[in-house]
Amino acid sequence: MSDLLTLNIEELVNKIKDAQITSEEICKKYIERINKFEKDVKAWAHFDEKLLLEKAIESDNNRRSGKVTGPLHGIPIALKDIIGTLDMPTECGTVIRKGKSYSQNAEIIDLLLSAGAIIMGKTATSELAYLGPSDTTNPHDYARTPGGSSSGSAAAVASCMAPLSIGSQTGGSVIRPASYCGVVGYKPSYGLISRNGVLKTSEKLDHIGVFGKSVEDVALLAKVLIKKDNYDSSTVHYSTENMLTETKKGPLFEPKFIFYKTESWNLIEKKSREAFEYFIKSFKKNIEVFDTPSYFKDIHKYHQIIHETDLANNFSTYYKKYKKKLSKYMQDAILRGNKYSAKEYAEAVDFMQRSYNSYKEVFEDYHGVLTPSSPGVAPKGLKSTGTAEFNRVWSYLGTPCISLPLLQGENNLPLGIQLVGNRYDDNRFLGVANWLEKECNN
Amino acid sequence: MSDLLTLNIEELVNKIKDAQITSEEICKKYIERINKFEKDVKAWAHFDEKLLLEKAIESDNNRRSGKVTGPLHGIPIALKDIIGTLDMPTECGTVIRKGKSYSQNAEIIDLLLSAGAIIMGKTATSELAYLGPSDTTNPHDYARTPGGSSSGSAAAVASCMAPLSIGSQTGGSVIRPASYCGVVGYKPSYGLISRNGVLKTSEKLDHIGVFGKSVEDVALLAKVLIKKDNYDSSTVHYSTENMLTETKKGPLFEPKFIFYKTESWNLIEKKSREAFEYFIKSFKKNIEVFDTPSYFKDIHKYHQIIHETDLANNFSTYYKKYKKKLSKYMQDAILRGNKYSAKEYAEAVDFMQRSYNSYKEVFEDYHGVLTPSSPGVAPKGLKSTGTAEFNRVWSYLGTPCISLPLLQGENNLPLGIQLVGNRYDDNRFLGVANWLEKECNN
Repeated sequence: MSDLLTLNIEELVNKIKDAQITSEEICKKYIERINKFEKDVKAWAHFDEKLLLEKAIESDNNRRSGKVTGPLHGIPIALKDIIGTLDMPTECGTVIRKGKSYSQNAEIIDLLLSAGAIIMGKTATSELAYLGPSDTTNPHDYARTPGGSSSGSAAAVASCMAPLSIGSQTGGSVIRPASYCGVVGYKPSYGLISRNGVLKTSEKLDHIGVFGKSVEDVALLAKVLIKKDNYDSSTVHYSTENMLTETKKGPLFEPKFIFYKTESWNLIEKKSREAFEYFIKSFKKNIEVFDTPSYFKDIHKYHQIIHETDLANNFSTYYKKYKKKLSKYMQDAILRGNKYSAKEYAEAVDFMQRSYNSYKEVFEDYHGVLTPSSPGVAPKGLKSTGTAEFNRVWSYLGTPCISLPLLQGENNLPLGIQLVGNRYDDNRFLGVANWLEKECNN
Repeated sequence: MSDLLTLNIEELVNKIKDAQITSEEICKKYIERINKFEKDVKAWAHFDEKLLLEKAIESDNNRRSGKVTGPLHGIPIALKDIIGTLDMPTECGTVIRKGKSYSQNAEIIDLLLSAGAIIMGKTATSELAYLGPSDTTNPHDYARTPGGSSSGSAAAVASCMAPLSIGSQTGGSVIRPASYCGVVGYKPSYGLISRNGVLKTSEKLDHIGVFGKSVEDVALLAKVLIKKDNYDSSTVHYSTENMLTETKKGPLFEPKFIFYKTESWNLIEKKSREAFEYFIKSFKKNIEVFDTPSYFKDIHKYHQIIHETDLANNFSTYYKKYKKKLSKYMQDAILRGNKYSAKEYAEAVDFMQRSYNSYKEVFEDYHGVLTPSSPGVAPKGLKSTGTAEFNRVWSYLGTPCISLPLLQGENNLPLGIQLVGNRYDDNRFLGVANWLEKECNN
């Protein structure tokens, strides 16, 4: 029964479908894990054992009575606590929202429920999905940060307290915790997953992302979530019909990658840097190391302008009414956000298109870009969730990116390789990611 | 031969195709008109008789030699002088660009040439497509403004110096001149026509629009221009396959409209107001008059913030180097544009989505919204091109709108009715516009 925790999701779904196992058994297994590890990892903002078991039993009954089942039937999924849920509070990691609920389910909840998934509970998030850390610890070393802001979502999957989870990324909030916690984290192209009913921090930069144990697992979950939603007008029509077959099939030819060490290379500690160098060397047939394009520097600046201005706008009421309940991180960001000029903001938004037009030329000759997912392994301490140095550019450009737990750095802690693709090319992108994962695990 | 000027474009195209008439004959007819009226109307920024005839002869030769012909083969078309052309200057209505050319054709030039159209010349525009007027006069009364900023494009069609023309709208620069000059002006949904290679004044608000003598004529031209362009990332895939059949077919049921008199109703002079009232009365089966939604006021404010900030950004070099060569209109706009905060701009951009989500509910029960195209007939004098009071909202919302020359106001001058549709519903929208045009002309 312990292999339940290592089975991939597709196998699990098939076993449930064939009545070899029940959703109740699966959920009990995860409850067991939670009872064992949650006291140390503190991944959950809201978890109700009884509610979960009720849902699992109902799901099993539905299956037995022959009701139509979806592609995630009976699979429990953890959600970052910024995603609005009717039957649980949505506190968004701030004491200001203590015990408060959203008045309706987020669009993606409806998609999950239609697919037969079971909402397990809500995972801890940094304050308002920004930098103020939650209590969550890194499952590999409780004295280290799990990264943020999707701290609980990454830590829950890493500690096998959930098979899959959902998070979000505005700077590096999916890729960084995935790297620190040693799980797969995937942020699809901007506009593939609706943010309707999810805490808004920045219209232009907010993305929903997913965590799991393999590329195939996250692809299965993403396929359920990707859907045009008229109430999130950033969303586009994108066909995921071939997402799973493309993921499994992989690229037609041996892929070629650009590796950007980036300006932040020197931030990385020695052992992690060696691990990346070793990775580059072992894929020397496939990888060319390039200098970082000079406009990446501008992107860092523009990302900050958009992000902080949007925080100042979206949380202006909190700032006016409850300033002292906000972290120093948030207060400072809002202070800066209040000071930018419209000209700077417009320039920052305008450059999104222009820089993407430059960036996409990569894909005339390469299958993707590789970079470190984070500047080394999870840093010590819980007061900071680390930096988004290696992630901001891709949030700004709206390209798909995925962190693969392929390496180890200091103290044998996990270290992610980030693969970046072309916008709206997620099906093929996941195939390339799957190829890379398989090559490393063989 | 004089019916050449009244034939609709489809008939003209067919006559050329069947060798009943040549493009050379057509162009000569328009040259005759230009030689007669241009001295008073001053619609052209660049017109070269010889070049036009060469192109027409080449087009006729191509047809005779059996080369494939497009849907506008042999039809001369006038272009607002902000659209980059390789073989003519692109001065954008400012002395700063006197005699200067763009280094490549705009994307839409390539589309026109592929369709077999003949670029006639460049029509006068207000300074940098904003408010500083060109010399152009109103063909119905030379002492009045033709409206702006697409002044020459509207006046050229109104005076039969061109059968079709292309303009642009950021506030009301297509609909207002169409109303004042008594022609059809159509601004498609935001993102249907590429602005690549066209003067950029505001990424979020700039639209390409078209002028002609009937709904069918503008539909024929728009169909050629609408195409996703990777170099204008606002553009979307939109199928125009059924655009002409839908235009001709019209709505399946008797259409229902909302009429918004708007807060600017009292700006309208008496006789024009009576004309609108008469129009409402004669369509009383189809029209319900509603109060203007309260958020339209916010839209006017937000439109101004985005427009002026973007002007300040896009023309900052002109402002620094050639301030004195800019009109007072532009100097003041840039001064204001430099003063807005990033928060205001972000709020203004953010509200685009939210207000559209409210607006689109109209289409659950109605085929479209009707309003005056302009606050009455063309005002006297050439120092102002009038106001965009009735147009800004639809530029901001990105909805399709069309001005139909169905009414007459003071001194029997033309007065347009504006029909507004739902975003990305242009095929059906043109059918409704065509229905309205036909009902009034029957």
